[in-house]
Amino acid sequence: MSGGPAVRCAVRAGAYYDSIVLMQLQRALAALPGVLDAGVMMATPANRDLLAASGLLPGEEVAAGPDDLLIAVQAESEAAAGEALARVDALLAVRRAGAAGQEFRPKSLASAFKQLPEARWVLVSVPGRHAAAVAGEALDSEKNVFLYSDNVSLADELELKKKARDRGLLVMGPDCGTAIVGGTGLGFSNRTQRGRIGLIGASGTGLQAVVSHLHARGAGISQALGLGGRDLYAEVGGITAAQALDLLARDPETDVIVLISKPPAPEVARRLIALARGVGKPAVVYFPGAPLPAPRLGNVGFASSLEGAAEDALRGLTSPRPPLAAPVAFAAGQRWIRGLFSGGTLALEVLRGLEPLFSKAGGHTILDLGADEFTVGRLHPMIDFDLRLRRLRQEAADPEVALVLLDVVLGDGAHADPAGELGPVIERVKAEAQAAGRALDVAVLVIGTDQDPQDVKLQTVTLEKAGARVCRTVTDLLDYAVERLEEIEGFPRPEDPPVPLESVQGPLAAVNVGLESFYDSLLAQGAQAVHVEWKPPAGGNEKLAGILARMKRSR
Amino acid sequence: MSGGPAVRCAVRAGAYYDSIVLMQLQRALAALPGVLDAGVMMATPANRDLLAASGLLPGEEVAAGPDDLLIAVQAESEAAAGEALARVDALLAVRRAGAAGQEFRPKSLASAFKQLPEARWVLVSVPGRHAAAVAGEALDSEKNVFLYSDNVSLADELELKKKARDRGLLVMGPDCGTAIVGGTGLGFSNRTQRGRIGLIGASGTGLQAVVSHLHARGAGISQALGLGGRDLYAEVGGITAAQALDLLARDPETDVIVLISKPPAPEVARRLIALARGVGKPAVVYFPGAPLPAPRLGNVGFASSLEGAAEDALRGLTSPRPPLAAPVAFAAGQRWIRGLFSGGTLALEVLRGLEPLFSKAGGHTILDLGADEFTVGRLHPMIDFDLRLRRLRQEAADPEVALVLLDVVLGDGAHADPAGELGPVIERVKAEAQAAGRALDVAVLVIGTDQDPQDVKLQTVTLEKAGARVCRTVTDLLDYAVERLEEIEGFPRPEDPPVPLESVQGPLAAVNVGLESFYDSLLAQGAQAVHVEWKPPAGGNEKLAGILARMKRSR
Repeated sequence: MSGGPAVRCAVRAGAYYDSIVLMQLQRALAALPGVLDAGVMMATPANRDLLAASGLLPGEEVAAGPDDLLIAVQAESEAAAGEALARVDALLAVRRAGAAGQEFRPKSLASAFKQLPEARWVLVSVPGRHAAAVAGEALDSEKNVFLYSDNVSLADELELKKKARDRGLLVMGPDCGTAIVGGTGLGFSNRTQRGRIGLIGASGTGLQAVVSHLHARGAGISQALGLGGRDLYAEVGGITAAQALDLLARDPETDVIVLISKPPAPEVARRLIALARGVGKPAVVYFPGAPLPAPRLGNVGFASSLEGAAEDALRGLTSPRPPLAAPVAFAAGQRWIRGLFSGGTLALEVLRGLEPLFSKAGGHTILDLGADEFTVGRLHPMIDFDLRLRRLRQEAADPEVALVLLDVVLGDGAHADPAGELGPVIERVKAEAQAAGRALDVAVLVIGTDQDPQDVKLQTVTLEKAGARVCRTVTDLLDYAVERLEEIEGFPRPEDPPVPLESVQGPLAAVNVGLESFYDSLLAQGAQAVHVEWKPPAGGNEKLAGILARMKRSR
Repeated sequence: MSGGPAVRCAVRAGAYYDSIVLMQLQRALAALPGVLDAGVMMATPANRDLLAASGLLPGEEVAAGPDDLLIAVQAESEAAAGEALARVDALLAVRRAGAAGQEFRPKSLASAFKQLPEARWVLVSVPGRHAAAVAGEALDSEKNVFLYSDNVSLADELELKKKARDRGLLVMGPDCGTAIVGGTGLGFSNRTQRGRIGLIGASGTGLQAVVSHLHARGAGISQALGLGGRDLYAEVGGITAAQALDLLARDPETDVIVLISKPPAPEVARRLIALARGVGKPAVVYFPGAPLPAPRLGNVGFASSLEGAAEDALRGLTSPRPPLAAPVAFAAGQRWIRGLFSGGTLALEVLRGLEPLFSKAGGHTILDLGADEFTVGRLHPMIDFDLRLRRLRQEAADPEVALVLLDVVLGDGAHADPAGELGPVIERVKAEAQAAGRALDVAVLVIGTDQDPQDVKLQTVTLEKAGARVCRTVTDLLDYAVERLEEIEGFPRPEDPPVPLESVQGPLAAVNVGLESFYDSLLAQGAQAVHVEWKPPAGGNEKLAGILARMKRSR
């Protein structure tokens, strides 16, 4: 035995301790005389790597599995290390005695609900492998769940969320770090005043950054509803996000909605954007890392950063967009949008903007007639309108076509009078459609300046006289097309049964299971709360827990 | 022979005609008595489909290849159709006589250059298969090229652009629709006043939409330089874009630069963003359909629409960002950025922002320590700083590490005093690095409100006293990191030899080969121009042209 620094380990096999307890044990050990460093963690491969990197694993192999607690001490001498490890149980006992002495604490959810029957929420932060069972029990008692625990399976998440949806309850999470419900923060959350902006997020620190930014700008929030990082996966389908959108759409205290999530599955994005289109108030969507369909589609803005999302929400508070004037309604069977563009980037921006809203495959098309395949041995469609006019007549004759989108790019080099070519044809095809009982709509994006040789005002007037809707920017054209598209496709049906507004109205009463610090935070914010003195079934012994669960079921 | 409507065709094998001539022939035929519709186009498959869709192909097979001219007429009777087709040659002759009678026109580039020796530009809009040869001839005469023609091979494009780069010349295109050089529009372009915004675009209508929007907002442009749609492909590597950025960086008449291109190859995007970082003036980048790295990286803003790009450029005119105060310089060998984050979305935003600027692989890392793999059996890093402090010490001891990025998320649930944990360690590792002759830099993103329990002001002061740079938004943190990163990596070297500023300074003198309407536009704008009465080698006969080319080479 040398007299130099020594590393020693102890193992508590299959023992469960609250993470806070472990952190405090580590600190207490590190503070003992002669101790240089200490590590206390479950012996997962990642944690072992960390201990090794800190020089806290001894040379010999330590027999411990991921469910075992590993306590490692580096001390000035073997003797000091041994003395430190000998105090582990005493230190753990002190902590537990302190915690138990505070007040009466229920040991089960059932008795917690008796103690605080007005609780609508349960905060669950027990270890991942136990979390689904606890959350399921809360749902069975008609409670909403804030599920902080991570390392919960996707299958369990889906089952919990379906169960919640069927009962008009919310499951925020798993791995939900942040929410503010009825003015009270759950998990990690920043203090701010109540306000008119409602947040929905599959990103805890994303929500916190937006709340903090809004606070710095003097604005407050109505609700901040967490989803967990996987809610917008294809497997889960955005169940909680859809519920939350519907809830905030109905919430009279919310004027603007912000939705944040890492890039969702495309079909989930499509559905949520459509739902956001239907909320009847300004909405801001931020999918970090995903390309933006457009800066704005009707009432829905698309942000490219947390800061941008917050700023867009502030703008939404002050400048709600007026609805467009409704044109003549389409006939039954008219259902496709057809774009015939001469500008490639204009076509691309229109396609990108509309594509997420196209719920029906196949029939909508946006063509760039300036693309190489159309221009071999032929003039560009900005000069020669022959191809476009032929396509326009063809699309207009199709009884399923509702809206035709065109562009007119003025300037040198282009056709001397595009409206003179397009106008009479637009007028004729609209009249023919009307004679056949249809309302064919034509919108034209006019790009140009008032110095261009074609006279932009005359071009606009000619097109408008022919019955076309004239737009001067892609954003305007998208606004119009989006509005008309919704007359065709409608909005998706919101979730049923709806989550009652009372679920998120303050003052909050909640039951906390897991991290005691979350309970402390609830009390510090003036919320009513009960903390469950939770232990894993059979003290963390998985085999025994399995037997107990089977016995319970068979009763 | 029936007395009803009839369709008849004529073919001119391997004949070359200007596209404008063909369009006019088509119109003239359609206007003849008894003619219902007419089509005049090269007999490519796409054009044949179009003729068929318009009922302009007769029942029997028409023998014509893609290099043959197909003239189709639908008339009230066989007789009317026949009469129309009989007039084709006469109509073509009228047009040619009219064109030839206007003035003396050179038949070759060489004689055009003699006629207008001050010409620095050649506009090329001959059919694609002849375009590379014409453009190459222009470059050989030290002229810049506006290459409107499409259907030019990628290999030819690369060869032309390399040749141009080596001579300090620009090749805009192929498939370049739009440019404004020294106040004169080339190809398709809008009339606007001169101004301080310089545009670069691999998108013709994209440039036109931005010019039109800026014009509507009262702003003008210095130059609009086209690239052609493929300049930012990996194969071409953004040769022209890099030249154009360097040119506008040196241009004293340009205060803000806008770069627009469909999503480039990632390595090309990386290089161009780095070049844009080095232009020394505000720049705006819009890559339609690509995810944005951040709303802004230092002087470079990222837009998400044509309209947004124009608006960002306007903001760049009025509010140039002041440079950050320079901290202590790094030592030789310090070259990596290491991020240790507790917030997943914060880590993601920082990674997305910096990743396009990381020119060296491997050494830069941005970690989310709140990710599932780090939190099994352990508290979240927003509560328990043990893991982060260990990693911080580890990174700080690495002599190759230059800058460590951290986040501190305040609020309920989080650590009661993060700065109290981080501050002393930051102070110590900075002092240790300094003792070892290094300047270790630490920047901390603080998220929170002034109502949070931790006292955000005290947290900030503690971190600043420890020597950390404190930022309050991701944008601020990125600004700082980007600036420091450039001290490490520098800017890429601009193109050599540079394109002389005189190349784009007005008044413009240019030679036009191809579409006569582009020549007309040049004259209408008051530019000096000469139109070449171009014919394909051997009158469009490819075989004969090949023989002639070989003979020319062997001389």
